[in-house]
Amino acid sequence: SDLSIISKESVRATFPNREVTSHKGTFGTSLIVAGTDHMPGSAVLAAIGAIRSGTGKLVMATTDRVASVIASTVPEATFLLNGLERICQGHIPEKIVAAGIGPGIEASESVKKATEVLMESGIPLVVDAGAIQKRNNWKAKGPVILTPHPGEFSRLTGLSIEEIQANRIELARHYAMHHHVTVVLKGKYTVIAFPDGETYINPTGNSGLAKGGSGDVLTGMIVSMLATHDNYRDAVKNAVYVHGLCANIWSEKYSETSMVASDFHRLLPLALQRIERNK
Amino acid sequence: SDLSIISKESVRATFPNREVTSHKGTFGTSLIVAGTDHMPGSAVLAAIGAIRSGTGKLVMATTDRVASVIASTVPEATFLLNGLERICQGHIPEKIVAAGIGPGIEASESVKKATEVLMESGIPLVVDAGAIQKRNNWKAKGPVILTPHPGEFSRLTGLSIEEIQANRIELARHYAMHHHVTVVLKGKYTVIAFPDGETYINPTGNSGLAKGGSGDVLTGMIVSMLATHDNYRDAVKNAVYVHGLCANIWSEKYSETSMVASDFHRLLPLALQRIERNK
Amino acid sequence: SDLSIISKESVRATFPNREVTSHKGTFGTSLIVAGTDHMPGSAVLAAIGAIRSGTGKLVMATTDRVASVIASTVPEATFLLNGLERICQGHIPEKIVAAGIGPGIEASESVKKATEVLMESGIPLVVDAGAIQKRNNWKAKGPVILTPHPGEFSRLTGLSIEEIQANRIELARHYAMHHHVTVVLKGKYTVIAFPDGETYINPTGNSGLAKGGSGDVLTGMIVSMLATHDNYRDAVKNAVYVHGLCANIWSEKYSETSMVASDFHRLLPLALQRIERNK
Amino acid sequence: SDLSIISKESVRATFPNREVTSHKGTFGTSLIVAGTDHMPGSAVLAAIGAIRSGTGKLVMATTDRVASVIASTVPEATFLLNGLERICQGHIPEKIVAAGIGPGIEASESVKKATEVLMESGIPLVVDAGAIQKRNNWKAKGPVILTPHPGEFSRLTGLSIEEIQANRIELARHYAMHHHVTVVLKGKYTVIAFPDGETYINPTGNSGLAKGGSGDVLTGMIVSMLATHDNYRDAVKNAVYVHGLCANIWSEKYSETSMVASDFHRLLPLALQRIERNK
Ligand SMILES: Nc1ncnc2c1ncn2[C@@H]1O[C@H](COP(=O)(O)O)[C@@H](O)[C@H]1O
Ligand SMILES: Nc1ncnc2c1ncn2[C@@H]1O[C@H](COP(=O)(O)O)[C@@H](O)[C@H]1O
Ligand SMILES: Nc1ncnc2c1ncn2[C@@H]1O[C@H](COP(=O)(O)O)[C@@H](O)[C@H]1O
Ligand SMILES: Nc1ncnc2c1ncn2[C@@H]1O[C@H](COP(=O)(O)O)[C@@H](O)[C@H]1O
Ligand SMILES: [Mg+2]
Ligand SMILES: [Mg+2]
Ligand SMILES: [Mg+2]
Ligand SMILES: [Mg+2]
Repeated sequence: SDLSIISKESVRATFPNREVTSHKGTFGTSLIVAGTDHMPGSAVLAAIGAIRSGTGKLVMATTDRVASVIASTVPEATFLLNGLERICQGHIPEKIVAAGIGPGIEASESVKKATEVLMESGIPLVVDAGAIQKRNNWKAKGPVILTPHPGEFSRLTGLSIEEIQANRIELARHYAMHHHVTVVLKGKYTVIAFPDGETYINPTGNSGLAKGGSGDVLTGMIVSMLATHDNYRDAVKNAVYVHGLCANIWSEKYSETSMVASDFHRLLPLALQRIERNK
Repeated sequence: SDLSIISKESVRATFPNREVTSHKGTFGTSLIVAGTDHMPGSAVLAAIGAIRSGTGKLVMATTDRVASVIASTVPEATFLLNGLERICQGHIPEKIVAAGIGPGIEASESVKKATEVLMESGIPLVVDAGAIQKRNNWKAKGPVILTPHPGEFSRLTGLSIEEIQANRIELARHYAMHHHVTVVLKGKYTVIAFPDGETYINPTGNSGLAKGGSGDVLTGMIVSMLATHDNYRDAVKNAVYVHGLCANIWSEKYSETSMVASDFHRLLPLALQRIERNK
Repeated sequence: SDLSIISKESVRATFPNREVTSHKGTFGTSLIVAGTDHMPGSAVLAAIGAIRSGTGKLVMATTDRVASVIASTVPEATFLLNGLERICQGHIPEKIVAAGIGPGIEASESVKKATEVLMESGIPLVVDAGAIQKRNNWKAKGPVILTPHPGEFSRLTGLSIEEIQANRIELARHYAMHHHVTVVLKGKYTVIAFPDGETYINPTGNSGLAKGGSGDVLTGMIVSMLATHDNYRDAVKNAVYVHGLCANIWSEKYSETSMVASDFHRLLPLALQRIERNK
Repeated sequence: SDLSIISKESVRATFPNREVTSHKGTFGTSLIVAGTDHMPGSAVLAAIGAIRSGTGKLVMATTDRVASVIASTVPEATFLLNGLERICQGHIPEKIVAAGIGPGIEASESVKKATEVLMESGIPLVVDAGAIQKRNNWKAKGPVILTPHPGEFSRLTGLSIEEIQANRIELARHYAMHHHVTVVLKGKYTVIAFPDGETYINPTGNSGLAKGGSGDVLTGMIVSMLATHDNYRDAVKNAVYVHGLCANIWSEKYSETSMVASDFHRLLPLALQRIERNK
């Protein structure tokens, strides 16, 4: 069958080796278009997800004000200021090997335009949140990964949330095959459907993730793993699995009620250790 | 009798279950109107209290400058900029299931107006600090919870602090019944009086809470628990109990002299774990 | 003799009890005038020292920009914006029971003026850093505590640093008696001389404190302890002792080379616990 | 031979003693020119490296906006605002005993000019990142330490990265001897070549450092150690060794994939403890 559950062993087996002679160039530069003045935190959270997941460098395309907020939590990031506008104008920084767009920005014509510019670049692209807009086609020169939660998938497909939840696997797979994109349909048992119909179910995660901001971290993680994995499919599956694993580790000691998205800053180093060191 | 002491068992019994299939919508969106340029930290603290207590999403209605400060500590929050003014004009963001107003803002006509707009919305409302102003009636379409410390209760009732402290239970109950509101009269042995006269005493907490900012965290916690509890009475009692429990946990290791309100960021995940896991 | 070494037992014996029925009013409101745009961090550090040392509330008198920086680290603080100017104009916020001036501000006419306004208020006053300026008299309505390091004491007295270091006890005592102030002559074996000539030597501290910013934290701690102690002498001695104790605790686990002033944020809760719980 | 591997024992033997009677003046004031609005974090990271490595005081020469970002993470720093411009104009703050230039700034005429001003001052100078520009000579009144990664060394020498990596030791040594500078050619097995040809290989570090920002921390560490070591050679070797040791300590518990440059804030106190206490 082309439906499987992601296993810890498969994540471990496909997780990139970090050669002793590696340098930041080895792990690529990631670009994330995120954050507006009334949703600055989503950009911070996407940046946290990215820098903790292995990318060599991170460029955040955002506003001046959001950049200051990010820099005080994630000093590892650099910035493309006036980022959304500049990407609309075709300005993509050099050496980007993976990109994401959407956290903390609302659907608009410029978001649509910027998404298209990125799709035409051939860079593997994660499309999330405000960038998930209905469109006739998702033709792109590189892999496109859509990460809708059921509400966003409803906006994308016109189906009701109830219909979607009743038929998550089939609908995600259908959309993926029809549009030649990867669909990460989020929620308990996140479904990952690839363009060829191969579909995966994620077993990790818990209600600690049922909070604003968890998805923004995931976007950063997928982008970062796209930058470090040879195979984009492994990157997507591994990011989704490890994201949920962080919540599982949290709940060993703390209340799920209390988990918040910025806790990933401390959880990712532990979660990835468990993957890499077989603990 | 209609006077009881809140017990750990009652908190545990009424604490909301987090279904495995939950998502951020399950736990509702909270709105808190808080913070001005000379009291930005109160808004940060209310936000900390809220995001750590279970709400699915948090919107902070505040000024531009305060929003930047909040975002660097609480990236999970989103913002209604120019928040106080916009709420005065009747603009309440969509899907709000619980609200609070007052931390870090001074009494003024616009605070009064914004409080009224919220009272008319039917959303359960916590009224704290600068929003605690004397008024003829507190008629509202939903539950109203006032959280005065004795000084604020004095301002509200015209009674002296001495009179209040000598007669905390009766006065809180009388005000609650007369005005059809819930009164949380804060201080050692916080009194919670409901509109029907049912009254509770909180046994938790210590002098570590006798600091500017503790009350702001409590406001955030009550709002967040209103968003996640079916019964607003349980939300209020549970928030007050857990707030004090955090201080008790603190003093297992650290000096009460040194506790500060931002310590709730680390204490709430432990305190709620003790409630939920019966430790 | 009127020369003694501060002992842990004396600190413990004079440390204020925190009554179970206390509230933030019990522990007083502190005011600290600190920080300029090129030295914002000193204000942050003074605020950390203050909020962790027991004061009920803290008002920082500073600039807009510095206020935003403080608020993101110390959300417990509130602000008197344009603080230095407003105090020069005689505006002292209500209910202040202890004050400090100097960290992160340079000597100037307005600092001198603000210092005088505070001296005339009768509020116990810590004078540090930029506020330590030579003057004919230090006549004040309340206790004045000067906290010079040897360089600042040289500026104050016209003596060379060598002369000062060769004769720390006598010179501190002489200045204190002559000017009716308390002199805290900092450095290894800090000397505390009171106006009547009683003099103390502090045994705690190590080279981890030999860093820019340590003194700013001490200023905040003394102000905060002035707000909570009945006797200003105990406040000064206890603050100096506990300040050094924090460095001693640090060096149980970490390198003194690496200690920085913001580490007091985590050390004070442990240090005060040891004092209060006889550990 | 004049090629050796740095050993833990040699670092320990040459690490400065911190006299009990030391004060912040004992450990010198460091100056770092770093950060622009689109790369603020590099300045934060250089500041973290510096304050955790022993310097008595730290002045960051930077922009207004970057200063606010630094201050919220590193309150120990003070600022020379409009720093790059003011240094170009010859304004070097008083008492600077060690300096660095480059993190988070791009190559430009003013960077070149500021570098020259510093070179003429006789202050030991670390030249990194944007300040590493090709030039006919590096004539300076004090030691100059260049810290290129292979890409920067390629820009400096005109050689390809492949040529450089194939011949790291000889090329670093040749450049150092020819230009009378110290070359720290970074990467796995960092090469340190002194002007007289003496050359060292660093054995510490791992792929956790293969991330944007690690080099910025190193710059801060070298500057800080220059301020505290009598011999600039020991400062450079010790900083490089300890920088890598931090990554080794990290990987005892956490994934190298997840390490980020701001983790040095917590790692340096442990790493220096191991050096100083022989653990
Ligand atoms: N109850 C749950 N169990 C497991 N994962 C969840 C749960 N709720 C939310 N998540 C995950 O948290 C993230 C939420 O994304 P978003 O809705 O965009 O913030 C997604 O990765 C979801 O799969
Ligand atoms: N001595 C104390 N014992 C228990 N709780 C306290 C004590 N002092 C303050 N609190 C609590 O701390 C909060 C202070 O609120 P506020 O005065 O608005 O900052 C309230 O929840 C009080 O009940
Ligand atoms: N070597 C040392 N031993 C003990 N205390 C020190 C030492 N160096 C500095 N201090 C303390 O650190 C603070 C420095 O203040 P300042 O010079 O204003 O930053 C004072 O409280 C000093 O007493
Ligand atoms: N694979 C690696 N092993 C050891 N050290 C490394 C490795 N990758 C990078 N580094 C160090 O990390 C820093 C990177 O500097 P930069 O390229 O300027 O950010 C330098 O100190 C390098 O020596
Ligand atoms: Mg989302
Ligand atoms: Mg309050
Ligand atoms: Mg000082
Ligand atoms: Mg670099």
